[in-house]
Amino acid sequence: MISQIDGFRAAAVHSGIKESGDLDLGLIVADNLCNAAATFTTNKLVSPAVVVSREHIKSGIAQAVYVNAGNANTCTGTRGLRDAQAICREVARCASVQAKDVLACSTGVIGHYLPMPKVRDGIKLAAGILSGSKKAGTDLARAIMTTDTKPKTAWREITLGRKKVRLAGIAKGSGMIAPNMATMLAFITTDAVITPALLRRALKKAVSVTFNKVTIDNHMSTSDTAIVLASGAADNASINKVSSAYERFAEALWGICDDLAQQMAADGEGATCAVTVKLTGAATQTDATRALRAIVDSPLVRTAFYGADPNWGRIISAIGYSGARFDADLTVCKIAGTTVFRNGRPSRFDPSRLSKKMKARQWLLEVDLGIGTHSDFCYTCDLTHDYITINAEYHT
Amino acid sequence: MISQIDGFRAAAVHSGIKESGDLDLGLIVADNLCNAAATFTTNKLVSPAVVVSREHIKSGIAQAVYVNAGNANTCTGTRGLRDAQAICREVARCASVQAKDVLACSTGVIGHYLPMPKVRDGIKLAAGILSGSKKAGTDLARAIMTTDTKPKTAWREITLGRKKVRLAGIAKGSGMIAPNMATMLAFITTDAVITPALLRRALKKAVSVTFNKVTIDNHMSTSDTAIVLASGAADNASINKVSSAYERFAEALWGICDDLAQQMAADGEGATCAVTVKLTGAATQTDATRALRAIVDSPLVRTAFYGADPNWGRIISAIGYSGARFDADLTVCKIAGTTVFRNGRPSRFDPSRLSKKMKARQWLLEVDLGIGTHSDFCYTCDLTHDYITINAEYHT
Repeated sequence: MISQIDGFRAAAVHSGIKESGDLDLGLIVADNLCNAAATFTTNKLVSPAVVVSREHIKSGIAQAVYVNAGNANTCTGTRGLRDAQAICREVARCASVQAKDVLACSTGVIGHYLPMPKVRDGIKLAAGILSGSKKAGTDLARAIMTTDTKPKTAWREITLGRKKVRLAGIAKGSGMIAPNMATMLAFITTDAVITPALLRRALKKAVSVTFNKVTIDNHMSTSDTAIVLASGAADNASINKVSSAYERFAEALWGICDDLAQQMAADGEGATCAVTVKLTGAATQTDATRALRAIVDSPLVRTAFYGADPNWGRIISAIGYSGARFDADLTVCKIAGTTVFRNGRPSRFDPSRLSKKMKARQWLLEVDLGIGTHSDFCYTCDLTHDYITINAEYHT
Repeated sequence: MISQIDGFRAAAVHSGIKESGDLDLGLIVADNLCNAAATFTTNKLVSPAVVVSREHIKSGIAQAVYVNAGNANTCTGTRGLRDAQAICREVARCASVQAKDVLACSTGVIGHYLPMPKVRDGIKLAAGILSGSKKAGTDLARAIMTTDTKPKTAWREITLGRKKVRLAGIAKGSGMIAPNMATMLAFITTDAVITPALLRRALKKAVSVTFNKVTIDNHMSTSDTAIVLASGAADNASINKVSSAYERFAEALWGICDDLAQQMAADGEGATCAVTVKLTGAATQTDATRALRAIVDSPLVRTAFYGADPNWGRIISAIGYSGARFDADLTVCKIAGTTVFRNGRPSRFDPSRLSKKMKARQWLLEVDLGIGTHSDFCYTCDLTHDYITINAEYHT
């Protein structure tokens, strides 16, 4: 758990932002300045929290993370920006750090001002109960949830020289998730000694093949942020160049992100199954991504997942309009290990048997375009009645 | 009704393709060769019916249209293509026309061979009951339905010189509908005297601002075809150049297509409301289309329509990731006539009153980016539980 990494404490409280009475505000505070890195949404519309955090992370140093769920503080003009800045000052005051070393995240409904008196009280309260206990991190993982049904956590341990290095992560992200962004929210703590530049390099690389590969509804949020803080408490020989130690750290960081990304897809709003989609054999990288996105962005394809219907016609026709170079005669499509389409014609398979395999919690869709060597993949889920219920009833 | 235009007869039968026992196969046959034009899907994967029709329409002449619903005959290899060619020959034989003057359309499930004995019998049966009655056209409008809940028809009458010129159309299209294509299926008959070149010009223009502006699920079909046949029976002075007579004919043709397109959006799979989305003030035409598409392609936006939730945050955040030039401070968003966002901040409005307005069968969403002069629009609908039910249960 992130709170159990040496050099960090965490806390979560109910400040009153969520009407449900659930935990909704939390802090991660490091004992000392940390080397840090972060990636953010590429949406042009962002929460003021993202504006402030982007500025504060430029130094490669941070000491605290503030987060609230239930209100994104987006589209709130200059007042929203002043509130985000005031939050950093309040955290600085209560946790004895500097405001410029605070990163802030706000996620939730767009277009509402933050209830600042509640937020200030929440920060004070949280700062007073900061703890290195497992429970503190678990509470925080719960506090950042919006429509998530379960908290998402990951843990990795590696040995560098004779030192144990630990990494822990938590994340939230259930709806409003599209690729080509960071993620909804992910916070990773580690006790590694590593330079800000290499931390940034490792995070960027990990995010590109994990959080950036999750799509639930092809709608990019305005709050997406992934942050990693390194306390240096492991006392390993500093990772200051691309070395085997760097590679092993980067792989562990990827592992954390990949774990969390897959948990996100499996807990996509209303999801009953997680589907990994692999697209191979494309003429170019652009073609691979285009064909992949056409498949996973199609509501028809994703309702077929829900119906456990091996409806490969929807998949192949989506590739047809994707813009990717494509020849039906060369294309092979496999659903949960069963070839359903090859040589431009339907393959023989037992639909009811295959339908049963598609009812698993997790399965694989593979499409090979048979043209080139480029590939792409993503983690997604089915589109269900519950997705509609959640989003038709989630009122502004 | 298309069958009531001078020079045309129509028929529809149950051939056995649809298991429900509903009408599923039909013909439109002209007494003489017609000037004709057609537009087709831009999907790289197409039904062999589209392959054959594209070839046959090159002459600008046609005399008959074959259509079946329930089976798209797509992804069926060379056997599927031979079947489409055989269909044209069978229609030619039974209706006393030439095979090269037959246009064919097949819509429905992908990846199944057509039951050719049933299709041949259906053609014979239909050719035997061809009629200029209203009922014949109404039956055909029903026969082409797949998940449509109601037939879609349109009628226009204009006077050119002293001659009355009539146009009639029918269409189907309920799911698998994205812009940048023709439509699902639309058949238009007219008694106008007009050259193939001008008929093509008028159809292309009309389709670009009607059928190409409907989006239901952003999934482009493999069968989409719009066909217009002109019998010349009205005996008007031939429309052979861009004249005021041409403009009046083109406007009437647009009217037919616009009527049908709006009926399609309103009858989108599972739809409870039809929403026209207007995007203005974009810096470029590309920006206008990008911003518009990001809005209407977002399942979050369209479930908010279903929930009658004035959730403008989803709309504005979609524009933010669309790639279009965008400044929240300049953007104005109006839902069903009520301004909900302006100057980068939420506007004051009564959400429950506005929610009531969103429960209408049809309403308007307007977004102005406040930057330039370019605009775009589309016809769409809400994303509902019934959409999920229809598409999760529609089995291959």
